[in-house]
Amino acid sequence: MKRIVFVEAPDAVGLVHRITGVFVELGLNIVTNDEYVAQKNRRFFMRSEVVGTADDQVIRVALRERLPLAETIWVLPERKKEIVVLATKESHCLGDLLLRQYAGELKANIRAVIANHDTLGSLVEKFGVPFVHVPHKGLTREAHERAMLAEIHRFEPELLVLAKYMRVLSSDFVSAFPHRMVNIHHSFLPAFVGAQPYRQAWERGVKIIGATSHFVTDDLDAGPIIAQQVLPVDHTHSARDMALAGRDVEKNTLANALKLVFEDRVFVFQNRTIIFN
Amino acid sequence: MKRIVFVEAPDAVGLVHRITGVFVELGLNIVTNDEYVAQKNRRFFMRSEVVGTADDQVIRVALRERLPLAETIWVLPERKKEIVVLATKESHCLGDLLLRQYAGELKANIRAVIANHDTLGSLVEKFGVPFVHVPHKGLTREAHERAMLAEIHRFEPELLVLAKYMRVLSSDFVSAFPHRMVNIHHSFLPAFVGAQPYRQAWERGVKIIGATSHFVTDDLDAGPIIAQQVLPVDHTHSARDMALAGRDVEKNTLANALKLVFEDRVFVFQNRTIIFN
Amino acid sequence: MKRIVFVEAPDAVGLVHRITGVFVELGLNIVTNDEYVAQKNRRFFMRSEVVGTADDQVIRVALRERLPLAETIWVLPERKKEIVVLATKESHCLGDLLLRQYAGELKANIRAVIANHDTLGSLVEKFGVPFVHVPHKGLTREAHERAMLAEIHRFEPELLVLAKYMRVLSSDFVSAFPHRMVNIHHSFLPAFVGAQPYRQAWERGVKIIGATSHFVTDDLDAGPIIAQQVLPVDHTHSARDMALAGRDVEKNTLANALKLVFEDRVFVFQNRTIIFN
Amino acid sequence: MKRIVFVEAPDAVGLVHRITGVFVELGLNIVTNDEYVAQKNRRFFMRSEVVGTADDQVIRVALRERLPLAETIWVLPERKKEIVVLATKESHCLGDLLLRQYAGELKANIRAVIANHDTLGSLVEKFGVPFVHVPHKGLTREAHERAMLAEIHRFEPELLVLAKYMRVLSSDFVSAFPHRMVNIHHSFLPAFVGAQPYRQAWERGVKIIGATSHFVTDDLDAGPIIAQQVLPVDHTHSARDMALAGRDVEKNTLANALKLVFEDRVFVFQNRTIIFN
Repeated sequence: MKRIVFVEAPDAVGLVHRITGVFVELGLNIVTNDEYVAQKNRRFFMRSEVVGTADDQVIRVALRERLPLAETIWVLPERKKEIVVLATKESHCLGDLLLRQYAGELKANIRAVIANHDTLGSLVEKFGVPFVHVPHKGLTREAHERAMLAEIHRFEPELLVLAKYMRVLSSDFVSAFPHRMVNIHHSFLPAFVGAQPYRQAWERGVKIIGATSHFVTDDLDAGPIIAQQVLPVDHTHSARDMALAGRDVEKNTLANALKLVFEDRVFVFQNRTIIFN
Repeated sequence: MKRIVFVEAPDAVGLVHRITGVFVELGLNIVTNDEYVAQKNRRFFMRSEVVGTADDQVIRVALRERLPLAETIWVLPERKKEIVVLATKESHCLGDLLLRQYAGELKANIRAVIANHDTLGSLVEKFGVPFVHVPHKGLTREAHERAMLAEIHRFEPELLVLAKYMRVLSSDFVSAFPHRMVNIHHSFLPAFVGAQPYRQAWERGVKIIGATSHFVTDDLDAGPIIAQQVLPVDHTHSARDMALAGRDVEKNTLANALKLVFEDRVFVFQNRTIIFN
Repeated sequence: MKRIVFVEAPDAVGLVHRITGVFVELGLNIVTNDEYVAQKNRRFFMRSEVVGTADDQVIRVALRERLPLAETIWVLPERKKEIVVLATKESHCLGDLLLRQYAGELKANIRAVIANHDTLGSLVEKFGVPFVHVPHKGLTREAHERAMLAEIHRFEPELLVLAKYMRVLSSDFVSAFPHRMVNIHHSFLPAFVGAQPYRQAWERGVKIIGATSHFVTDDLDAGPIIAQQVLPVDHTHSARDMALAGRDVEKNTLANALKLVFEDRVFVFQNRTIIFN
Repeated sequence: MKRIVFVEAPDAVGLVHRITGVFVELGLNIVTNDEYVAQKNRRFFMRSEVVGTADDQVIRVALRERLPLAETIWVLPERKKEIVVLATKESHCLGDLLLRQYAGELKANIRAVIANHDTLGSLVEKFGVPFVHVPHKGLTREAHERAMLAEIHRFEPELLVLAKYMRVLSSDFVSAFPHRMVNIHHSFLPAFVGAQPYRQAWERGVKIIGATSHFVTDDLDAGPIIAQQVLPVDHTHSARDMALAGRDVEKNTLANALKLVFEDRVFVFQNRTIIFN
């Protein structure tokens, strides 16, 4: 059985040797192994894929014994993540995820799609996935978020995916899923933060547009970036053309980011991501 | 003899027919022809390459007669632009231009390189190009710019190229070369305006960096964008690594932008460029 | 009403003037206009989008009068193309087309999906599109193609899209849809023609893989190329990883090519495409 | 002092632990560490950058003791490679290398440029690098290669760089520098092997062209690929335009490949490269 082992620790001589020593003792074969040291902070990160019969808890305890100073020790079984997708009205990112699940290539199980409009219900139900409509009309943001969270918690997701969910989230909502909420933003962050990024891009006359997938944090559009992708444009593109062309980049960027997240390859350190792939 | 004809006019029915009517009458063959209408502003732009023996002034007069409302009518002979390059200490963009001139592929003639440091003198002189050192030390910005302008004017350039010239320019300086000064900015504008863009990019944890070549206007780093190019980076890149990797993108982006400018393919309309290529 | 006008003619002085003269007389406004001259062959191509009330046939006749030597004069109303999609077992390209149709962004109407396996039936039917299964088992290639053609003709498509249809086509089949059949080939043609291109790519150790969308001609994988796209890979990618990563490139490349074809922007001249966009 | 340690061995449990055990014993700090296992061949590869005072030979002996089955154990000091560049008439790749050396960013020392034409002599000498002209005129290929090799050996290079050296090399010549000769090929291999690749690309009507940097082996254009890069083109590009545009891709691709090679990041296994970066 394969497991992902992740260690974050203050850098020190011999860490790799100590960690791989545990693997040898417990009869775990290394499939892949990646390390990174953030030199400025003298912080060590290591992600290994190992195969063997030892129990997760046994591995964890053995690593902790050898690495008393480690910040983080994770031993994660290789399995599909359980997710809930939030959406609004646009179908391109959501549809892409549904298709990937249909094709068996999504390393996640979409437990439900929850949306503040009912537009996407018929699409979601085609794929046999529960769709929940939580209208925001007439509700304060707080009341709507409470209703959303109540529905989300029913499905007990490990991760939330915001597939063009177009509502600004409160601090409270965000803190319910720390580094467990992945968003797709329709610009090449940090350019064009906020509303109507394609309009802003058109006005600035840029020659390349892009999309950014990031973890959601309190600070709007400022969370740790997971993946970015770009597309050339020219003067013949109206803001609307850019938005249309941007759809493909958005869905591809989100798919790329999620692949990395679902495979436990993305770690956050000081608002930046470390990605082992 | 080949000429570039450029017309900007309020949009109207039959403009292409009228313009090409002039070409037919004057025995000018169209080599290429490009039009664009900015729909929102109902503004028409056309760039043609024509071949024939008619005199420039004759073409101009004939076009003006048929297009009394045109904003702009240019008839430009196809020839190398006369340029002056401004630099500071970094050699990658400047060296690339010198090499392209050496290889005969630069559609411009570098009349001189003028720099506020003497670092690049020996490189420039290898290529037989005049190098002028105008030190800024001990001078106010105004005094230094006056000295720079005096040297620049000696060489009577049509265009100025800022090949990593690291001084902020005053309004007065900029207004001496309206839309005739091309800069390379070491970020993917409008992200990371201002100082130390690679440091800013590192701190934000972006996964793609870039460079932007633009015409210089009063508003720092906000002039019309000509070309942009990007490069993927990851968590292993320090700000310094990004800066090093960025060099190649900078020199390529500047070269691409200059090729377009030197071939009279770039036109400015409302702080955006229209590029016919 | 908008129409696409396309003219192919031996190059001559004044062609643009003559064509736009017709537009002026018939009260047609030019929205966009693109020309190209294949210099070696002295062949002229022009594509215009015009708006006005004149009748298609009237435009055609007027153009023919002024352009007696033209090879081709097309006046095409702007409307969705009627297509049939051929598929086998893989869902990524087909699913993407179905989603785009669902989102209203496909400039075509999928009249049916016809496949030699029944695997994709349930997906297609989710979207309310007719699915026809034409099994090849036990049939000669000729017999199977006859059965396919019979089904295809029932739906009277203007264009056929081969969305990972994995059967080699006979000359007869191809000639039934000259330059009206668009294929997606899972390699960066002309590299890795034929079977198992990802396996070939892996063996050659390439650092970039790609996909190619092209019109189908008699000569396997040698038809006029419409669009190509690439993806970086490295030594850690197995042939299977490449195939998985390639799926996204395949679906994006096919979508890009089809957008161009459905908008009547792609013309074939001597086994190469001229694309006005 | 920093050293690159590279190990290739049959895969086995505990290899990383054993190797890092040597590092711990000899007081070597790991800066970076990369492993790869070619699963099909059960072959293990590891590249580490380590810092410490232990002697190279001591490290080598200690590793060999623990890894009796290893195919390869290299302990390489971090220092500039000594190279000779071969060229013909084109300056873009060579000029780029000279400029990078001038800017101090080339991790190599160009001991000499040797060419079969004298065209580039004046450029090379500007940079104070010895230039040797070995004309091929009137000589058999064998005689010319002998003359070339005699000159090359005078400069005792570790690596040869073929910066658009346009002569086909014999088996004997190639075998003198096994996996120590880096070439830049002006196509996206394996497409358009052989002569005039841009002409071939034009004829095939491709929408993307590229360049390939590879180690030279006996089999023309079939050596292990180090880096590839691409550039979009369209129907307006003549074969000559492609060649011009291709220059930039060629010089960038060669520069990227050489950076990897000079930093001892490229290893060859069964005609494919493993690149740790």
